[in-house]
Amino acid sequence: MQYYVPPVAKLIEQFEKLPGVGHKTAQRLAFHVIGLPRQSALDFAAAIVEVKDGIHYCAVCQNITDTELCSICANDARDRSVICVVEEPRDVVSIEKTKEYHGLYHVLHGVISPMDGIGPDELKIRELISRLGDGSVQELIMATNPTIEGEATAMYISRLCKPLGVKVSRLAYGIPVGGDLEYADEVTLLRAIEGRREM
Amino acid sequence: MQYYVPPVAKLIEQFEKLPGVGHKTAQRLAFHVIGLPRQSALDFAAAIVEVKDGIHYCAVCQNITDTELCSICANDARDRSVICVVEEPRDVVSIEKTKEYHGLYHVLHGVISPMDGIGPDELKIRELISRLGDGSVQELIMATNPTIEGEATAMYISRLCKPLGVKVSRLAYGIPVGGDLEYADEVTLLRAIEGRREM
Repeated sequence: MQYYVPPVAKLIEQFEKLPGVGHKTAQRLAFHVIGLPRQSALDFAAAIVEVKDGIHYCAVCQNITDTELCSICANDARDRSVICVVEEPRDVVSIEKTKEYHGLYHVLHGVISPMDGIGPDELKIRELISRLGDGSVQELIMATNPTIEGEATAMYISRLCKPLGVKVSRLAYGIPVGGDLEYADEVTLLRAIEGRREM
Repeated sequence: MQYYVPPVAKLIEQFEKLPGVGHKTAQRLAFHVIGLPRQSALDFAAAIVEVKDGIHYCAVCQNITDTELCSICANDARDRSVICVVEEPRDVVSIEKTKEYHGLYHVLHGVISPMDGIGPDELKIRELISRLGDGSVQELIMATNPTIEGEATAMYISRLCKPLGVKVSRLAYGIPVGGDLEYADEVTLLRAIEGRREM
């Protein structure tokens, strides 16, 4: 890094921290930013700050939102008897894009992963259980990723919620095993929702 | 974009503007930033602002620097009789990495490209000519990219400078034609510097 003046070296370092960005790409991105008009660079920086300061978790489903309740929880037309449980906010977007699911969501913000020191208490599982209290929810669709951790998390939540009289189903294996929910196409994901089976 | 709250949509949009970043990647990068500790995100934003506010062009060679003169122009050990003319600051880094070039540089900040409305006046060519005034410079090495625009720019500067009694050479075609200087490995680049020929 001794070839760059400190401000440039620092920016390259920051870009290198992004997932899938190596040194050459970080260099290219940094020089792109250097070449931007000043206002565009400021807008970029502001967008990063705003995303940290302007959003928080929905009080009900824990999805990211800039209002008290997210637009899905606040929408009276959604079916309040079904909750689709996902790992991350981006998974909500993937399922919304199928345009065929009309229930609610619950975002766990991760999966149980003892190797990384993430147990059930680090996830939004307590918040999920508290939503089942009034008996209005009849089904949980476990839509965690089809990975070892995703399966284990689905199994854990299933065992916790079944005694409460809630039906728990799992996305059908239309989604490729070992893959990532984020990259499933809309049709595959829709097949998976339709073919869900009780667990 | 209607699936995202405005701060998230805005950040995805900003990432999409980066070279080589598509929608899915932008989404992934945005969610990575959302998941960062607040301080890390602020550091990232600050690095972007700082690179715009903390650096400027070296008064002599037009390379980016955070001091009055860049470290190369300020270094008395460099050979002041040779100037290597490059398109962009990143090309200086590529050539410095060969560790075998000890002359000075001149950064044009682009190439002549009539299609994009970039003529000689948009580049730092006037600043280059003014460096040849005192007769201390004996050779210009044209190290613009081996593209049509890079060749044309090298040719233009060569015709301008030869009447001033300066030897003008061109990087040898060790660098792959149609390629990009930034991606040449150190050895290829070194061969190209050694095999330069008068033009």
